[in-house]
Amino acid sequence: MDFIDLQINGFWLFLYLSQVKTPIPVQAESPKGKSECYGVFCLTYDLKAEEETKSWKKLINIAVSGAAGMISNHLLFKLASGEVFGPDQPIALKLLGSERSIQALEGVAMELEDSLFPLLREVSIGIDPYEVFQDAEWALLIGAKPRGPGMERADLLDINGQIFAEQGKALNASASRNVKVMVVGNPCNTNALICMKNAPNIPAKNFHALTRLDENRAKCQLALKAGVFYDQVSNMTIWGNHSTTQVPDFLNARINGLPVKEVIKDHNWLEEEFTEKVQKRGGVLIQKWGRSSAASTAVSIVDAIKSLITPTPEGDWFSSGGDGDYELVKEVIFDDYLLSRIRKTEAELLAEKRCVAHLTGDVSVRKTKSGIAFCDLPEDTMLPGEM
Amino acid sequence: MDFIDLQINGFWLFLYLSQVKTPIPVQAESPKGKSECYGVFCLTYDLKAEEETKSWKKLINIAVSGAAGMISNHLLFKLASGEVFGPDQPIALKLLGSERSIQALEGVAMELEDSLFPLLREVSIGIDPYEVFQDAEWALLIGAKPRGPGMERADLLDINGQIFAEQGKALNASASRNVKVMVVGNPCNTNALICMKNAPNIPAKNFHALTRLDENRAKCQLALKAGVFYDQVSNMTIWGNHSTTQVPDFLNARINGLPVKEVIKDHNWLEEEFTEKVQKRGGVLIQKWGRSSAASTAVSIVDAIKSLITPTPEGDWFSSGGDGDYELVKEVIFDDYLLSRIRKTEAELLAEKRCVAHLTGDVSVRKTKSGIAFCDLPEDTMLPGEM
Repeated sequence: MDFIDLQINGFWLFLYLSQVKTPIPVQAESPKGKSECYGVFCLTYDLKAEEETKSWKKLINIAVSGAAGMISNHLLFKLASGEVFGPDQPIALKLLGSERSIQALEGVAMELEDSLFPLLREVSIGIDPYEVFQDAEWALLIGAKPRGPGMERADLLDINGQIFAEQGKALNASASRNVKVMVVGNPCNTNALICMKNAPNIPAKNFHALTRLDENRAKCQLALKAGVFYDQVSNMTIWGNHSTTQVPDFLNARINGLPVKEVIKDHNWLEEEFTEKVQKRGGVLIQKWGRSSAASTAVSIVDAIKSLITPTPEGDWFSSGGDGDYELVKEVIFDDYLLSRIRKTEAELLAEKRCVAHLTGDVSVRKTKSGIAFCDLPEDTMLPGEM
Repeated sequence: MDFIDLQINGFWLFLYLSQVKTPIPVQAESPKGKSECYGVFCLTYDLKAEEETKSWKKLINIAVSGAAGMISNHLLFKLASGEVFGPDQPIALKLLGSERSIQALEGVAMELEDSLFPLLREVSIGIDPYEVFQDAEWALLIGAKPRGPGMERADLLDINGQIFAEQGKALNASASRNVKVMVVGNPCNTNALICMKNAPNIPAKNFHALTRLDENRAKCQLALKAGVFYDQVSNMTIWGNHSTTQVPDFLNARINGLPVKEVIKDHNWLEEEFTEKVQKRGGVLIQKWGRSSAASTAVSIVDAIKSLITPTPEGDWFSSGGDGDYELVKEVIFDDYLLSRIRKTEAELLAEKRCVAHLTGDVSVRKTKSGIAFCDLPEDTMLPGEM
C-alpha cells in the first residue's frame, strides 16, 4: 500500500524500510588513523568555572564529512557561530577528510581558530570515520565523489554507496546511539538508505536525506510567479528522489495560506515549467557563478537541522528524505498528476535500491558475476549542476 | 606630537588627518550603468502589514564591493541571516561588481533568493558605484585588484588607489551622509585614506580599515602560547599598517585580565616570534588550504561591524584603522620596544601616503613627469598570503 505509506509518512524512504529485511552484521575494523584535536582546541577548559558560560548547555559533538569542501566551508562557520544550535549551545566539531584533503582540513581548523567563536570548544580532524564519528550526536555527511567523465550513474551509485556503507558501519560502531544523520552527498536518497542499512543499531528515523535546497528553490520560484515575497509560501514538499524525477508538490503548497492553484492561475506553468525551473537552478548557477551553489546548500542544511530541532510554525510543514518520527502530516492531498509523478520517482528509487543491493544486504536481488547488483537504470536523471 | 595623537586616538590613520589639507572637489560623473533589483527582490512588500515583521526596524542599505568574490560569498550570507545586525533588522544588499564579474554577481543574487532569508528584503546588483552606493548606510569595500606577477607595491598602491578614489567620490555623491565605510581591499589603510579624502562630505570618523583579522589571529596565538582558551584574551590592539610592519600589541593585551607579560614569561617569544606568527598566518593558510582565508576574513568583518554597533564589553577594547569617535581608550601604555615598532610602521604609512598623493589631493608632494606621485618604498612589506 504505497500511497497509504506515503500519506502517513510524508517521507519517501519509508518504502525502502518495509521491503529490505536483511540487516548487515557489523564488522569490527581496525582504525586507519587517529582523529586528533587541533591547535587551540586541544586546550582543556571548564565552562562551569566562567561567569559567561556556566549557564550553557552540555557540549554536543557534530561530525561533518567532506569537511574540507566548499559546502562545509560555509556550514562549519554557521555551526560554530551559534546560528544553528543557539547561543547557549557549545559545540565540538569532528571533521572527516581524506588523505588527499588532510592539509586543507588543517587550514579549515586554523580558520576556525582565528574566528574565536566562543561556542566552539573542540575541533578534531581525521580520515578514519570510526575515529571521527566517536560519540557524534549529529553526523552531517557531505562528502561524496563527484561523477567523473564517462561515468555512468550506476558506477556513481556504487562508488558513493561504498563510502556510505563504510560510514554507516562507522556510525553504528562509534557514534551516539541516537545520532541524527543528514546525508547531503549525492545521490543522497540512496546514500542515506545504504548508510541506514549499515547502521542497524541506530533508529531508522534518525536518517535524513537533504531535500531542503530543492524545497527552498521551489518556494522561491512559486513566490516569483505569484509576485509575492518568499516568506508567504508554505507547506512545500519535495517527493521522491533528488534527481530529475523529483516532485516539487504545488498541489499541497500554499501562498498566503491559500492553495497555490488558487493563487497561480497559470496551471500550465505549474505542470510544465515550475518543476524544470527548480531542477535547472543548480545548472544555471554553475553557468553564472562558475562553481556549484555551496552557500545556499549550506543554508538549506542549516534550515533542515533547525526544522528537526525546533517546532514547525503552526500550519506549515517541511519535508525530508527519510523515515519519519516527529509529527507526520495527515492532511496531504493527491491528484492524478501528482500521483503519476510520484510513481515515476518511486520506480527510480526502487531501481536505485536494486543497484546497491550488494551494499545493503538485500539478498533477493539478481547479482552480476562480479558480485555487484545488476543495475538497470533506464535514463540519466542527474540534476544539472550536480555532475 | 605623534605619540600623543596615538595615545588619545588608539587608531592609526589619525596621523594622516592632521597632515593632509587639500580636499578634492567632487566631480559629477555620468553613470556607467544602472543598479538593478534582482528576481524576487524586485517585488514590493509591506513589513508593517505582517504580524511577524511589523515590529521590525526600518530597512538599512548595505553596499558591498567585490560582491562576487570569495570573502563576500561568506559575508553576504551572514549579513542576510541576521547574524550581524540582529533578528529585527531588515536589510537591503547593494552589490557592486565589475563588467567581468556581473554574471557571477547574478549567481550570488540567485543563491540569496534560494536562501529565503526573511530579513533580506532587497538585493540589487550593478557595476557603477554611483548607482550602487545610492543611500547606502554601510559600505563594505572588499573588492581590490590583487598584485599581478612582477607588480611593485607602488603599482599596486596606484591601481587600487584609483579604484578607492572613485569609490570615495561615489560615496560622497550618492551614499547616506552618515555612511559607515569599512575598507577591506588591500592595502587597506592607504585605500581607506584615499577613499576618505575623496569623500569630504562624509565624517572622517566613519572610515575604517579592517585590522580585525590580525587582531583575532593575534588573540589566538597568545591563547595558544599561554595555554588558555581564546576567550580569555582581551585588549588586543593592532597598530599601524596592514603589512609586515604592523604591530600586534602584546604590551597592552591581557590574558584572564592580567598583562600578557605576566602570564607569558617567555618575553623573547613575544618580541621575536609572536608577531611573525600572526603575520605568516595568511601565507600558511594558502599553503594548507590552497586559497586565501575568505571565511575567517568574513568573520572578522562581522566582528568589526558588531564592535562598531554594540557596546564593548567592560574593560575590553578593539582597534580599527581610522579616525576614532566612539570612546577612545585612555589607558594605553607604551614602552621602547612598542614605540620603535610603531615608528617604523608609521614611517611606512607616511611613505605610502606620499605614493598616493596624486589621488588624495596632497599638493606638497613631489610628482614624477607622468603626474603620479614619486614613490619611495624601501622594502616589500606585503603580508604573506596577500600577494
